[in-house]
Amino acid sequence: MRLTVLGAGAWGTALAKLLHEGGHPVTLWAYEAECLDEIRRTGRNNLFLPGIDLPRDFRCEANPRLAVADRELVVVATPSRHLRAVTACLADFAGVVVTVTKGIEADTGLTMTGVLEQTAPGAHLAALSGPTLALEVARGVPTAIVAASHHAETAAQVQALFHRPAFRVYRSTDLVGVELGGALKNVIALAAGVCDGLGFGDNSKAALITRGIAEMRRLGVACGAQAETFSGLSGVGDLIVTCFSKLSRNRGFGERLGRGEKAADIQRGMINVAEGVPTARSAVQLAHKLGVSTPIIDEVHAMLYDGKDARQALRDLIARESKAED
Amino acid sequence: MRLTVLGAGAWGTALAKLLHEGGHPVTLWAYEAECLDEIRRTGRNNLFLPGIDLPRDFRCEANPRLAVADRELVVVATPSRHLRAVTACLADFAGVVVTVTKGIEADTGLTMTGVLEQTAPGAHLAALSGPTLALEVARGVPTAIVAASHHAETAAQVQALFHRPAFRVYRSTDLVGVELGGALKNVIALAAGVCDGLGFGDNSKAALITRGIAEMRRLGVACGAQAETFSGLSGVGDLIVTCFSKLSRNRGFGERLGRGEKAADIQRGMINVAEGVPTARSAVQLAHKLGVSTPIIDEVHAMLYDGKDARQALRDLIARESKAED
Repeated sequence: MRLTVLGAGAWGTALAKLLHEGGHPVTLWAYEAECLDEIRRTGRNNLFLPGIDLPRDFRCEANPRLAVADRELVVVATPSRHLRAVTACLADFAGVVVTVTKGIEADTGLTMTGVLEQTAPGAHLAALSGPTLALEVARGVPTAIVAASHHAETAAQVQALFHRPAFRVYRSTDLVGVELGGALKNVIALAAGVCDGLGFGDNSKAALITRGIAEMRRLGVACGAQAETFSGLSGVGDLIVTCFSKLSRNRGFGERLGRGEKAADIQRGMINVAEGVPTARSAVQLAHKLGVSTPIIDEVHAMLYDGKDARQALRDLIARESKAED
Repeated sequence: MRLTVLGAGAWGTALAKLLHEGGHPVTLWAYEAECLDEIRRTGRNNLFLPGIDLPRDFRCEANPRLAVADRELVVVATPSRHLRAVTACLADFAGVVVTVTKGIEADTGLTMTGVLEQTAPGAHLAALSGPTLALEVARGVPTAIVAASHHAETAAQVQALFHRPAFRVYRSTDLVGVELGGALKNVIALAAGVCDGLGFGDNSKAALITRGIAEMRRLGVACGAQAETFSGLSGVGDLIVTCFSKLSRNRGFGERLGRGEKAADIQRGMINVAEGVPTARSAVQLAHKLGVSTPIIDEVHAMLYDGKDARQALRDLIARESKAED
């Protein structure tokens, strides 16, 4: 199968490697020309996926239209805020588009396949999401993931393409649930990181994560997702790994917030994108529009965008949560 | 209120301290006479809850019948395998009995309140369960927990007694669900520890835990529990903390199994009880009786009781799980 991966961040690069190892010729496009140069020259992407040897025969292509021309399947792995612009190149594309980007578009409230329905109207759309730290996947550490599409055949096609002994792919037709789980867990992981940064214990963090799953499910169901999806790999599975791993950017961002750093300062120093930051804003908009109560997401938003003190935010959260239940 | 705590392990001692701080005179009974002596002499229980200063006016009582005589409420915090014998002293007790022991009785398949229905037939029964590492609670680190009883009034009474700003108590009438969540999570935590011991990554562990929640829910529902309970504090909340905390005995036991130590050797060196070890046996019996598929629990049982190699067990689990889903 002729494949292209759009975006050479950690996850795009790791998936390009996995697909290439499956025997498919892979074209890789990146916004950063120096990144493609380095891969061509050294077989490494040290900016985004350090320490991993890549196949030497990736076709690196700096022009997105050329990168997707004549392809059967395109994987979209850009940051969420660039997805609409980058996928303009897919306007006439008629193959399968798989998004692995986790986010909700600001102002429109659209998931990534929601954006793709507009930018790639002729494509068959799917999303791939689950507990999958890029560096671990690149190293071949076993994991499992969900391929979701409104169309069972598309989900099955994506499953067959990505499935490996150490990379088990399950199927779902709850595309909205799978995408929202992946997007919203980054916001909850920011809050879990704040817990870490404030030196709160494992008990507090577990209680927060538990309430976080309920919040993700509530907002997801209001958007038309199935409640059970949030109990699966793309919901609680991805949430757990993001909230506990030292490799998680969103948790790490939250930890620094909890230690008293300012959001703007943290962001300036990061090469990678912490998707929870823009997603907190779009999730708050979405929850407000749908009338869903999202106390954790609201406090994360207040810390990120209103400069609210982290300790105060967690304290307000505990006080507010106590009213929410018996 | 006149209160007694039966069992001066880490959790019994931490709860006795919390209740005493709430202004109630507390009597503490322990099987280990030297433990009571130490608390009387030094105000510490260094064997089970090291480094925590206890109130100097606990009444320590070595005779269980005297310990519970004339009490309004008794907290049972013994290891699960001793609960039946210890609570023989409650045969004529007519107050409230709260179990904080997490386990399933071998051969009978009874939860702890199931055993108490037989040993304390005149009592009002409740269980208290959630993500609560004893050492963190003793240090006043914030957490949340669930008070469950078939009777809403009993649950509310227990809630009022234990509730503190940093120890939030929620209520449930799904006693079976709350108790089984607490018991079964210890078995899943053993498996998560094996993952750690084998050096598997965060992705694998998150996938395992996600499948573990589904397994707990399946077995719980077959026993009459409500599915939603396993998504709450006493289910996934407690599971998360037990699978990730360095303070968790069950996770630690699994980690040593994963590194190749024998179960019998690990057990010999432990002062505290890893409840997941006996619970793995009772859970397998229960699942077999009810015809419920429990692949993770089965593999934990095989490692503990049939000397199965940890790496092989995890490999078989991955192979078996792949058949269980699409």
